[in-house]
Amino acid sequence: MREQIRPATPEDDDAIWSLFQEVVRAGEWFAFDETTTREEALGLWRGPASAAYVALLEDEIVGSYYLKPNQPGRGAHVCNAGYMVAEGARGRGVGRAMGKHSIVEARRLGYHAMQYNFVVATNTAALALWEELGLQVVGRLPGAFRHPRLGLVDALVLYRVL
Amino acid sequence: MREQIRPATPEDDDAIWSLFQEVVRAGEWFAFDETTTREEALGLWRGPASAAYVALLEDEIVGSYYLKPNQPGRGAHVCNAGYMVAEGARGRGVGRAMGKHSIVEARRLGYHAMQYNFVVATNTAALALWEELGLQVVGRLPGAFRHPRLGLVDALVLYRVL
Repeated sequence: MREQIRPATPEDDDAIWSLFQEVVRAGEWFAFDETTTREEALGLWRGPASAAYVALLEDEIVGSYYLKPNQPGRGAHVCNAGYMVAEGARGRGVGRAMGKHSIVEARRLGYHAMQYNFVVATNTAALALWEELGLQVVGRLPGAFRHPRLGLVDALVLYRVL
Repeated sequence: MREQIRPATPEDDDAIWSLFQEVVRAGEWFAFDETTTREEALGLWRGPASAAYVALLEDEIVGSYYLKPNQPGRGAHVCNAGYMVAEGARGRGVGRAMGKHSIVEARRLGYHAMQYNFVVATNTAALALWEELGLQVVGRLPGAFRHPRLGLVDALVLYRVL
């Protein structure tokens, strides 16, 4: 792994939107579907309360993640995060590198805990990685995700104190 | 109980905002704090994807709730809901009436399930009511709510299939 992870800039918006469209097209990991606009996607990833990062392999953007408060005010000490890896860069440790980076960054930004609201239960590779990084399944949402091949499957809530 | 529950109209915005401010001032139930603007509050309650209702007692608005998709696209068949009851109308069945009404409405709107993302664990009256209405605790978020008197307390995720 010679990946590099750095804060995203406005110049990265096209690359982030491109990754987002790829992940959404696959349809197996995000609740967002193809009706999501560029504005909505970038509003989540690069909004005023979000901190976004890009991961590069050989100078090419192959991944991105964001951190943002999961709730307003009285819940804003817990961050939410979302991660994307380009299809062609899977299996090269980009997700793991971003996961580790995000925990360090979340602590640095002063968050007390990290929460994923909606991890698709069939996404076993992601779940194994998040558990390796210390996140625990703290909730199960029966049939909450409409999987493109499998129909309604469960989504999981993951959490870790930082 | 002679409460009446009807869809909210733009004319109810002042009353909804007033309720919202009262609940936020108490600080014990919502993650929203006093930095929340009227625009943000009404954006949640009366936004394009939300269905909002008001509850009246003797022609006065004493409660309100909204239903909206809890996730976009592939998760939009599960609704989220939020409820508020005026301080002076507590203990008169307004919350229960809105809870029951919301389940009927959510089904009518085609939702498959209902999810509350963030019920403060110390809000035992609400929890008893939601369990009575068939919602189950499916997740626990350690220390996710900054309670004004008790410090960090857990928040719970509740869910029911409709």
